Amino acid sequence: MPHIRSEDDFLALVDRHFPRGGESVALSRGDDAAVIACPDRMCVTTDLFLEDVHFRRSYFSPGDIGYKALAVNISDVAAMGARPLGFVLGLVSPGDADRDFWNGVLAGMAELAEAYGLPLVGGDLSRGDKTGLTVTIWGEAGPSGRFLTRSTAKPGDILFIVGAIGLARVGLALLEKEGIGARERFPAAVAAHLRPIPRVDEGVILADIPGITACMDVSDGLARDLPRLLPQGMGADLFLPPGLLHPEVTAYAAGHGRQPEKEAIFGGEDYALVASATPEGWKAVRAALPGAHPIGMVGGKPGYTLNGAPFAMNGFDHFG
Amino acid sequence: MPHIRSEDDFLALVDRHFPRGGESVALSRGDDAAVIACPDRMCVTTDLFLEDVHFRRSYFSPGDIGYKALAVNISDVAAMGARPLGFVLGLVSPGDADRDFWNGVLAGMAELAEAYGLPLVGGDLSRGDKTGLTVTIWGEAGPSGRFLTRSTAKPGDILFIVGAIGLARVGLALLEKEGIGARERFPAAVAAHLRPIPRVDEGVILADIPGITACMDVSDGLARDLPRLLPQGMGADLFLPPGLLHPEVTAYAAGHGRQPEKEAIFGGEDYALVASATPEGWKAVRAALPGAHPIGMVGGKPGYTLNGAPFAMNGFDHFG
Repeated sequence: MPHIRSEDDFLALVDRHFPRGGESVALSRGDDAAVIACPDRMCVTTDLFLEDVHFRRSYFSPGDIGYKALAVNISDVAAMGARPLGFVLGLVSPGDADRDFWNGVLAGMAELAEAYGLPLVGGDLSRGDKTGLTVTIWGEAGPSGRFLTRSTAKPGDILFIVGAIGLARVGLALLEKEGIGARERFPAAVAAHLRPIPRVDEGVILADIPGITACMDVSDGLARDLPRLLPQGMGADLFLPPGLLHPEVTAYAAGHGRQPEKEAIFGGEDYALVASATPEGWKAVRAALPGAHPIGMVGGKPGYTLNGAPFAMNGFDHFG
Repeated sequence: MPHIRSEDDFLALVDRHFPRGGESVALSRGDDAAVIACPDRMCVTTDLFLEDVHFRRSYFSPGDIGYKALAVNISDVAAMGARPLGFVLGLVSPGDADRDFWNGVLAGMAELAEAYGLPLVGGDLSRGDKTGLTVTIWGEAGPSGRFLTRSTAKPGDILFIVGAIGLARVGLALLEKEGIGARERFPAAVAAHLRPIPRVDEGVILADIPGITACMDVSDGLARDLPRLLPQGMGADLFLPPGLLHPEVTAYAAGHGRQPEKEAIFGGEDYALVASATPEGWKAVRAALPGAHPIGMVGGKPGYTLNGAPFAMNGFDHFG
């Protein structure tokens, strides 16, 4: 397999996939810094995507790696009710960087960037023992001008999700056990883990509804993320009827002696949106986003119930 | 040594060193993304800072690591003639993250951030085999409103530097051979490698002088970086008189049978500024920045001379 021979060689590969221009780009890649035209306020976020932590090369195709590294960042912008405007990229590669591999990574990322009209305005490149990507992305508010936040839900608010929950966890468990072959029986679960869909349009629609009180994306699992959506001292009563769950979650749980609701609630990396709305706001959500599903109600006291029974929330922790 | 027990524990450590507020920060750390107030145009750049590639834990103190990870990013903003406004941080740590180590890293970084009034508005945290930091930083133009660029020097322009060159390379060579003990005989060289000084005020002053035609920071060595300052098809005649070089560079070269000018010209990670000025502009530079030193003149043809003799330029390459 041909190796990348120099930094210039690497940068030429980047140039092949990412145009230099862009509406908001005054000065693109190749200088000490890029220069971008900015709205009055922007949201900005950064996410790491590292081999053997966030992905495995054994079952992620190169294109999946590039896609997901960017998708998880776009999802954070979507969770703010915002639209992404541009990004920078840090790439870490073993010294014998394989050209076909990186060509695939960049192609997968460029496909998603193009779908959102996102310019790659700069980056950095380094040797390292393992492959890693780090993206920093920024975005602007939608027509409402507001950004959605966490920790701002109120007692009595309806909790709802946009997107599946638990599906990516099932995909991960199967991929770890069976490799990419798991795709044949569980295509949706595997796709949910490899190619999560950022909910940008949905986030912007939610930001436009005044009765939305809080919003975030589910990256560490609802069990860990939901408490972050609520102010301290509050809890929630959750209802996850079996019909809410994806059939592949239900099938996996049945085949492995597990409870499907627990798969859903502890499942990480779904990148669904979870949000809260006043009862009035919820009516607007139903009208605007038929794909939004209620999952419970915010309570004024700490503690959670799931389908009527007390339930302890916790989830994935890198250092736990 | 006590270990960091959870992500929340890690974030509490970050909170201890970095205030959440900041003039331009509408929403700080802890949400899916931060929200910042922006000028019309901003520059943005990202740099990786990885263990055993960019630093060694054997001779970088934790504080040095945090300092330099941020300093090299500030330097890129300075090279644009701009002032930094804020940054986000990605942290990679082995799973048994040592609290004292990270406390020191964050303290060293916070000290520099405070000196520039820079808020840390967000970040990401991950396990990884080795320690790594990734910073994305943004900045605004100075009073002139313009950003300085590369590749825009013109034939007949004066080339000059602000800051020492070659000193950090001498420091690196000594640190690799002798460890931190090298500091006793070569304090300036060791400091130049461990704690490079970003040239923000100088960069802003240069951006304000209309006769400055190009500017960048010297991160990969003048031999590799200078060709990036010039448009394709141009070259330069360089003059590096012995008196221009730091005495520790001269002393190191004398003691190791090397030519001091070559140490200077191949030396990376100096984070000096190298810039070009029209003859008129150079007069203004002399008046405004007495610490700026001329090092040559841009020529209209490819190729370089050093102190009158032809000279082949090249330098460090991560994948070369």
